[in-house]
Amino acid sequence: MTSIDKAVVIVSGGMDSSTLLYYVVKVLKRKVVATLSFYYGQTHAKELDSAMMIANSISVPNIKVDLSPIMRDFTSALTGKADIPEGHYAQDNMKQTVVPNRNSIMLSIAVGYAISKDAGEVYFGPHAGDHAIYPDCRKEFVDAFKAAELIGNEWTPVIVRAPFLDMTKGDIVKMGLKLRVPYVKTWTCYKGGDIACGKCGTCVERLEAFAKAGRTDPIRYADRVYWKQVVKQA
Amino acid sequence: MTSIDKAVVIVSGGMDSSTLLYYVVKVLKRKVVATLSFYYGQTHAKELDSAMMIANSISVPNIKVDLSPIMRDFTSALTGKADIPEGHYAQDNMKQTVVPNRNSIMLSIAVGYAISKDAGEVYFGPHAGDHAIYPDCRKEFVDAFKAAELIGNEWTPVIVRAPFLDMTKGDIVKMGLKLRVPYVKTWTCYKGGDIACGKCGTCVERLEAFAKAGRTDPIRYADRVYWKQVVKQA
Repeated sequence: MTSIDKAVVIVSGGMDSSTLLYYVVKVLKRKVVATLSFYYGQTHAKELDSAMMIANSISVPNIKVDLSPIMRDFTSALTGKADIPEGHYAQDNMKQTVVPNRNSIMLSIAVGYAISKDAGEVYFGPHAGDHAIYPDCRKEFVDAFKAAELIGNEWTPVIVRAPFLDMTKGDIVKMGLKLRVPYVKTWTCYKGGDIACGKCGTCVERLEAFAKAGRTDPIRYADRVYWKQVVKQA
Repeated sequence: MTSIDKAVVIVSGGMDSSTLLYYVVKVLKRKVVATLSFYYGQTHAKELDSAMMIANSISVPNIKVDLSPIMRDFTSALTGKADIPEGHYAQDNMKQTVVPNRNSIMLSIAVGYAISKDAGEVYFGPHAGDHAIYPDCRKEFVDAFKAAELIGNEWTPVIVRAPFLDMTKGDIVKMGLKLRVPYVKTWTCYKGGDIACGKCGTCVERLEAFAKAGRTDPIRYADRVYWKQVVKQA
């Protein structure tokens, strides 16, 4: 039987899921049997090194799940099928960064893994800022998917949880700073260069979030001011 | 935009999904952009050769998706974590053959693949006889999961379809014989030996189905009569 004290956390290596992991361990006091990180052919695969470092920093196992043989053909700017758009997430071209059905795929595997380890919860980190772009980051999807998983695993229930669903990225940073998340080890930029570009949607969003929290983002950027004009225009 | 004329079909190499593929191509007249077959560490991996042969027999592509690095650790008799139970599916020990969250995982990947190929449907083959053992083969799961996928992929809808959900395996054989499904190429037995055992739950069920259809199963069995006593006892 699955236990509500044990959990699996999906960690990308970015800011939100790293904060989520610290929240689940330090605040909710769950035993995290594993963090799962997914390689699906993303250009910014270096986020997976960050996922490993973040998991290590709080002493939980990290398992890399390689789905690239099938998913690298999925149509998305993140798998190299289009240029990574620059600018603000509110722009329509940001939809190119959708990876078809990614959350459903990652959550399904995480739920199956959780059952095998008797863990009763799976955590993942969508937040309020994701809703405009990613239909699979909305409450409606999380609720529907959670219900389906409970029906499909009747004898071994696993609850899908997305505790940051209504939080802004600024609020997530504020919480993470309190929990001493080592943000310097995280990776967010979709371009996957040597240092973060500062121009893609997710860099812009991250810099804006740190500004809202009144703190300086500890990672290096190729362009640390571009986000300001973009946010003004959005 | 996804098209309702194009479909992805999940094919295991067994009787039901092979019949399903023929039904989708020959009766529903869909263009099947690919069949997907999943290797998750199952002892009876030779079913994947059957999946390839069945797909070839009707001239559609077959893609093997290897999930074994993560799923071979999933707790199931099918992944070698317990002995394959012999007897009738009505027995309680058959639950050991559940692979945690398998249908959710396979369907999620199939939906993502379908979106990338502009296909508007994903077909899979649960039937009425599966319901007692497998919660993720029930109408309640299919309906809930279908709804979740439509919400999660709002701009690229894919409909999950399980047209055999209310059919018995006997009815499936009858349909398949009409459609000239080459059953001699299919593989069902969970034990994965040189020839089918005739004693595991799925062999028993298959032999019973052929008997109900008034036909002889064209594949070879180590024991072709065991099923009769088991069915009588059930």
